[in-house]
Amino acid sequence: MPSISEKGRLMPASPIRKLVPFAEEAKRQGRKIYHLNIGQPDIATPQVALDAIRENRLRVVEYSHSAGNESYRRKLADYYRNLGIDVDHTQLIITTGGSEAILFALMSCLNPGDEVIVPEPFYANYNGFAVTAGVKIMPVTSYIDNGFALPPIAEFEKLLTPRTKGIIICNPNNPTGYLYSQEEIEQLGELIKKHDLYLFSDEVYREFCYDGKVHFSAMEIKDAEQNVILIDSVSKRYSACGVRIGALVTKNREIINTAIKFAQARLSPPSFGQIIGEAALDTPAEYFCHVQQEYIERRNLMVSMLNNIDGVLCPMPTGAFYTTARLPVIDADDFSQWLLSDFHYENETVMLAPASGFYSTPGLGKDEVRIAYVLKKEDLEKAIVCLEKALEIYPARKKS
Amino acid sequence: MPSISEKGRLMPASPIRKLVPFAEEAKRQGRKIYHLNIGQPDIATPQVALDAIRENRLRVVEYSHSAGNESYRRKLADYYRNLGIDVDHTQLIITTGGSEAILFALMSCLNPGDEVIVPEPFYANYNGFAVTAGVKIMPVTSYIDNGFALPPIAEFEKLLTPRTKGIIICNPNNPTGYLYSQEEIEQLGELIKKHDLYLFSDEVYREFCYDGKVHFSAMEIKDAEQNVILIDSVSKRYSACGVRIGALVTKNREIINTAIKFAQARLSPPSFGQIIGEAALDTPAEYFCHVQQEYIERRNLMVSMLNNIDGVLCPMPTGAFYTTARLPVIDADDFSQWLLSDFHYENETVMLAPASGFYSTPGLGKDEVRIAYVLKKEDLEKAIVCLEKALEIYPARKKS
Repeated sequence: MPSISEKGRLMPASPIRKLVPFAEEAKRQGRKIYHLNIGQPDIATPQVALDAIRENRLRVVEYSHSAGNESYRRKLADYYRNLGIDVDHTQLIITTGGSEAILFALMSCLNPGDEVIVPEPFYANYNGFAVTAGVKIMPVTSYIDNGFALPPIAEFEKLLTPRTKGIIICNPNNPTGYLYSQEEIEQLGELIKKHDLYLFSDEVYREFCYDGKVHFSAMEIKDAEQNVILIDSVSKRYSACGVRIGALVTKNREIINTAIKFAQARLSPPSFGQIIGEAALDTPAEYFCHVQQEYIERRNLMVSMLNNIDGVLCPMPTGAFYTTARLPVIDADDFSQWLLSDFHYENETVMLAPASGFYSTPGLGKDEVRIAYVLKKEDLEKAIVCLEKALEIYPARKKS
Repeated sequence: MPSISEKGRLMPASPIRKLVPFAEEAKRQGRKIYHLNIGQPDIATPQVALDAIRENRLRVVEYSHSAGNESYRRKLADYYRNLGIDVDHTQLIITTGGSEAILFALMSCLNPGDEVIVPEPFYANYNGFAVTAGVKIMPVTSYIDNGFALPPIAEFEKLLTPRTKGIIICNPNNPTGYLYSQEEIEQLGELIKKHDLYLFSDEVYREFCYDGKVHFSAMEIKDAEQNVILIDSVSKRYSACGVRIGALVTKNREIINTAIKFAQARLSPPSFGQIIGEAALDTPAEYFCHVQQEYIERRNLMVSMLNNIDGVLCPMPTGAFYTTARLPVIDADDFSQWLLSDFHYENETVMLAPASGFYSTPGLGKDEVRIAYVLKKEDLEKAIVCLEKALEIYPARKKS
């Protein structure tokens, strides 16, 4: 039997994968599980987008242009210009989810062995795309004690080597919920200009900013047009994760001309996803007001309940719909498994994402978990009560 | 400005890309172009599949399982078992088109620098996936004079090196329309078993076999279960190219376990595409009878008309909906461009795919073109009349 590839061996499994069999067993035993572990919102996809699919009259579902339908690209460019990101339809490629945009960006810009600096904790799938592209992730640690703010630029500079080619940020951040300020993004701007690095800016949670804070896009950094690549997706914005539509956006013509060759090899992005994505651009503003209000209420409930639990520290996230919280446990991986295998309260339990999977530096995040507040308030409340009860009796609790 | 990647530079542009501006200019001048250059069928997608999309009542378009919806995988496994390919739903992964299945297969099985042997002419996008995976394609030439039959096994063996890890075939073949016989597939089976190679078998045109010939899948090779990876797609079978749904199928558990990690990194295949794919499995048999009959009539018309043109050689294809024909021209790239830029007959012209883009060995296929018979008969007839008129006056005609 021939052997599998080295990259195949190196590919990380999903961080919650080892929990799945325990969750399945708990379900078999009739237990209700509150899923705080995944970023799959329960919010409805905008009606205007769902209607577009139901009313489509395609007779042949044909390939689209490899860069996506031109009508969609033009309308998406309008959306960006309304946000102050000055691009036209030739400066973006519609991709199969934000995932493909990240992969095309890394493949177009970096060589195997090149290094990218990423603030940790970070979205775990960056690891998979880095392995695919043969790129090495160099983590720069952010800390819970200042709410996971951008690490000092000096910490990035310490990691620079001749192989450093770029920085990846996620803003607002998954898994921390931290929204980078304009000043922080501009500091990164100075850094990439000084050392001529790429900045890959994953801004798929752009619409989820709270407390009057305004999102400042990496595309707005002055005089860095050739260095910035925006990664985008409709998944979270329109609660349409399954359509697999994203975008790679850059004013760097050479990158567009390169990425389009990767796009041509895979022919086209999904047709029905493009129909949803284009129609969703007509979503009325009230939709986002309602969704934002809902997330703010959930967040406030969750943060205050968590911080009222003895030994728990939960920073106040100002973006996305995640928080990374510290629990009074020695090992959050063990605790998360124990919640599924050994615990229930009124026949219910909670599934968490242990934060260790979001750190690249071994040993970090051992007492942290990512919590996605994607459940309606009454369920969120029950879930956190469950968590509180669990922490009261969990045997491997950390001494305070 | 930072530099783009080496792989980005190496990525091939689409073989017809340089023709596109000429086609656009011809259209601007009001000319009608018959597109014989692309495998985009005009056949309607099955009604049962289109209805499933229109009648969907999703409220939230959620992520699916990374391997695809279980209901779809189970039904797809039934489809394969009905064909004599004995797999279950854990032995396949739903992918974003056949494209992603090829990429996952190469990434899971081969290391950068490894070699795969591919009969040429071959589907040009294999080049792009090989560049992405860092794999080297070693072409073994098939020839128009025997209708592009499988080259002798001795020719494959001449190309074996310590880096040879696999063979890619497309059966029925794009771009030649050749259907490999059971004997040819079994010869390949002996070869991969003898040298412990992978066989990546792209069978997306399985339903398009003519003249009573039966498709023999590489999955049916005896005692090669650990070596064979089937690449599949719904694009051609159901004339649904835009849905981007394919599958990677193998009985090799280690490959499935590896490919699923690549699948998890990109989260899930498209939701609406899976709805189409699953519903399409209920397509009534008459649909395929009708489609096959239609393609046979088109093929017969095309082949007889082409072979009646002085200096043209068109083998009789027995599968897919392509033929690779020899034209009496010195340079088919130049001729294809000239058709768009300098020629018209009754204000109409033809777009062809020069075969040079399907060969890996430089200089081969210079006088050949791929013709896709994806137009209705009256259009196909007009297109070939156009081609005949063009050959009569083309200045760089080959002397016979």
